[in-house]
Amino acid sequence: MSVPKFFEYVDQHQTDFIDRLRKAVEIPSVSSEAARRPDVVRMAEFLVSELKNLGASVETRDVGIQKMHDGSSLNLPPVVLATYGNDPSKKTVLVYGHYDVQPAMLEDGWNTDPFKLIEDDEGRLLGRGSTDDKGPILGWLNVIEAHKNLGLDFPVNLKMCFEGMEESGSEGLDDLILLEAKKYFADVDAVCISDNYWLGTTKPCLTYGLRGVSYFHLTIKGPGRDLHSGVFGGTVHEPMTDLFKVMSTLVAPDGKILVPGIYDKVAPLTDEENKTYDNLAFEMNELHSAVGSQVNIHKTEREVLQHRWRYPSLSLHGVEGAFYNPGDKTVVPAKVIGKFSIRSVPDMETEDITALVKKHIESEFAKLGSKNTVHIECSHAGKPWVATPNHWNYVAAAKAVEKVFNVKPDMTREGGSIPVTLSFQDALGKNVLLLPMGRGDDGAHSINEKLDRSNYIQGIKLLGTYLHEIAEIKA
Amino acid sequence: MSVPKFFEYVDQHQTDFIDRLRKAVEIPSVSSEAARRPDVVRMAEFLVSELKNLGASVETRDVGIQKMHDGSSLNLPPVVLATYGNDPSKKTVLVYGHYDVQPAMLEDGWNTDPFKLIEDDEGRLLGRGSTDDKGPILGWLNVIEAHKNLGLDFPVNLKMCFEGMEESGSEGLDDLILLEAKKYFADVDAVCISDNYWLGTTKPCLTYGLRGVSYFHLTIKGPGRDLHSGVFGGTVHEPMTDLFKVMSTLVAPDGKILVPGIYDKVAPLTDEENKTYDNLAFEMNELHSAVGSQVNIHKTEREVLQHRWRYPSLSLHGVEGAFYNPGDKTVVPAKVIGKFSIRSVPDMETEDITALVKKHIESEFAKLGSKNTVHIECSHAGKPWVATPNHWNYVAAAKAVEKVFNVKPDMTREGGSIPVTLSFQDALGKNVLLLPMGRGDDGAHSINEKLDRSNYIQGIKLLGTYLHEIAEIKA
Repeated sequence: MSVPKFFEYVDQHQTDFIDRLRKAVEIPSVSSEAARRPDVVRMAEFLVSELKNLGASVETRDVGIQKMHDGSSLNLPPVVLATYGNDPSKKTVLVYGHYDVQPAMLEDGWNTDPFKLIEDDEGRLLGRGSTDDKGPILGWLNVIEAHKNLGLDFPVNLKMCFEGMEESGSEGLDDLILLEAKKYFADVDAVCISDNYWLGTTKPCLTYGLRGVSYFHLTIKGPGRDLHSGVFGGTVHEPMTDLFKVMSTLVAPDGKILVPGIYDKVAPLTDEENKTYDNLAFEMNELHSAVGSQVNIHKTEREVLQHRWRYPSLSLHGVEGAFYNPGDKTVVPAKVIGKFSIRSVPDMETEDITALVKKHIESEFAKLGSKNTVHIECSHAGKPWVATPNHWNYVAAAKAVEKVFNVKPDMTREGGSIPVTLSFQDALGKNVLLLPMGRGDDGAHSINEKLDRSNYIQGIKLLGTYLHEIAEIKA
Repeated sequence: MSVPKFFEYVDQHQTDFIDRLRKAVEIPSVSSEAARRPDVVRMAEFLVSELKNLGASVETRDVGIQKMHDGSSLNLPPVVLATYGNDPSKKTVLVYGHYDVQPAMLEDGWNTDPFKLIEDDEGRLLGRGSTDDKGPILGWLNVIEAHKNLGLDFPVNLKMCFEGMEESGSEGLDDLILLEAKKYFADVDAVCISDNYWLGTTKPCLTYGLRGVSYFHLTIKGPGRDLHSGVFGGTVHEPMTDLFKVMSTLVAPDGKILVPGIYDKVAPLTDEENKTYDNLAFEMNELHSAVGSQVNIHKTEREVLQHRWRYPSLSLHGVEGAFYNPGDKTVVPAKVIGKFSIRSVPDMETEDITALVKKHIESEFAKLGSKNTVHIECSHAGKPWVATPNHWNYVAAAKAVEKVFNVKPDMTREGGSIPVTLSFQDALGKNVLLLPMGRGDDGAHSINEKLDRSNYIQGIKLLGTYLHEIAEIKA
């Protein structure tokens, strides 16, 4: 293995790699803002140019148009597909990343211009997209550059899939994955996604599970128009009264979901699984710090992580159609839509969740004796995901972590969902690994997003070493 | 009495009176829009000019500045004070109206330009402010014109108070009323406000009562910032969960308020009072038509009106700080403010209402065992109002209705509040009468606001006759 020379190259070219990230951060590729769409396309062009210079075969795929809320249409940014190496004797690894970013404005509270990469005194590379997800994407490019310039044999055939709509629902991507499953992605042996974070700030992890989410719209309507509470209060069935009654029966203040039957299919916690929580690098004060206060429900770190990763939860998000501004307004809303979602875990089925919620809502509404009408629908549902963490894809990644960081990685799951994970697993039928580069406090969607210099540089080593470890695997 | 000649003049000058209303409607005096403030001032100038031409003594009062949400300031439109007649042997009647209007745009769904007065085939004068409240204000001016041009002795000393901020909380008016109570308004014997509506569409009414309102902000907070439900769902006490639990304990689907003790001071319904509901011109289909559906709680018209006028009600209005847009967002809001209000009736006291609500909310919140915090406050409170309907002010108005419409007026109350009513009663210590000109279906705050030609013309006769009847009273 040629790892020492590779490590040396990476250490010596830190400035070049940071400059590459600087150029990427300077392109404000915000996918959710129509006016920024040309910047998103420019970011794709930047990647294409960099990849071509590195000798990769690159193509861009038009994935259609986006219908905007105002009725207009916008071209979706292209998906960049690239291949580096084509040796039938090597394994083929597909890596995924996204080159679009969350919105950011100095006025939101950033300490520095969000679209200038600034390194502060503590070695933090501040800038929108630094950690989510431009740093990890460029990590792969940096690995290629190092091998090319060192004249080292590249350990695997690398396929790359970089999209520009991840922060806006990955529109168009699933269709492309299905279309290319037996074509562009036909030879793929395993998938690696670097688009999540360490559990804390000190220890690397491999992530093998995500919760699913079922989002619900609970509509209650009655009056034909919004009414004045002075004139009509006390004389008509008010949709808000009914909505609060029904929504208050969904979840207890301690987080327990009150929908009958919802826990029936939740996989029981085995002793073996419980042991995997024994030594995770996570402290209660990290939760307090992330939440900004001490409103934790559970007393132990183990319970916190289990309720984040392997038990379902239900959150009430808001009400559409009601008064929401500051101040006072005496409106009786005619039609209100309560929004809530359930985070799902193995072995819950999304169809069961919808059926149980529907049954519960209709039963609770019937108790009210209201003349209003109720309608409940699941607006979107994503299944939970759990990979096999003893697959060679994980074994290789774990060995790579040990070589770069001298520590065994934490084996983690996450409470949120990364839908593309399941899309790749289902369409390709291959093992998917989540291999994060950044830390848990990077603030991916917040102000002052950062990627620590050491995470970027060690992360490049990690991604390269992971590919070398795959080449070593005899499977 | 010179009523026949007056009636004849009004009938013959319908076109002139409608032209006067046309000019007023063409001035888009929307008090809630900063950009329209010059139009509000222009409307005041129009009234001053018309009043001066009629020979009234007119003055305008600067009532200060308005602090806007964006931190800027705007001059409040002036209050127009005018006097017509100054004969110590006559009674002095103060009439109030407002010359500002609700916002209106063709795009809202108006069939015609809201700021052009259009008469349709059914004799409806369509236009913003036609009925609320430019028609009634000009009614008083038209009465003066008729008497002046006919050379008739004016039956009373008329004091007029016309404000330009009624649709925006009457800012500045209460201070002026207090300031002038013993000065400009010192000689006032009775007050008449024409700023409400008939109960239905066919029969005039006099209105002698209004409900009060106590508006509450229920704040629950915990996390230091908004959280992602994927990462934190199931691990922290969510303010929305607590808010829905607590707010769901406030009112039953049948409108019954669940705050303990809230009904204790509600005046019992006497047989005598119950009889006043015997023959009111109100049909259940008018409620259905106004509400736009059949979600009435009560089976009889009597119960509907009693629950609108003389029983309290509680309405949930909305949530500040939660997700409210269309679509899906998986936010766990860090701080939410539930908004609700109680319509109060005699003999409830606002201080008691606040204390009972506070006690109930805190007791219900304590049951949750949540680590979040709760805060409840009354953001504004207005007392209920009930006048003495056998006062000569009402007797005169009732006689006037009989002379103009050949029918005894319904004696009504209203469910909403018109705060200036109580301001005048309290500051001047005089009887206040609500004498409506328009019909219950005029759509004062809606699209296609109208005032029927017959209501305008007969309304002018009504206002004039009312003043003559006052002059006849020996009290």
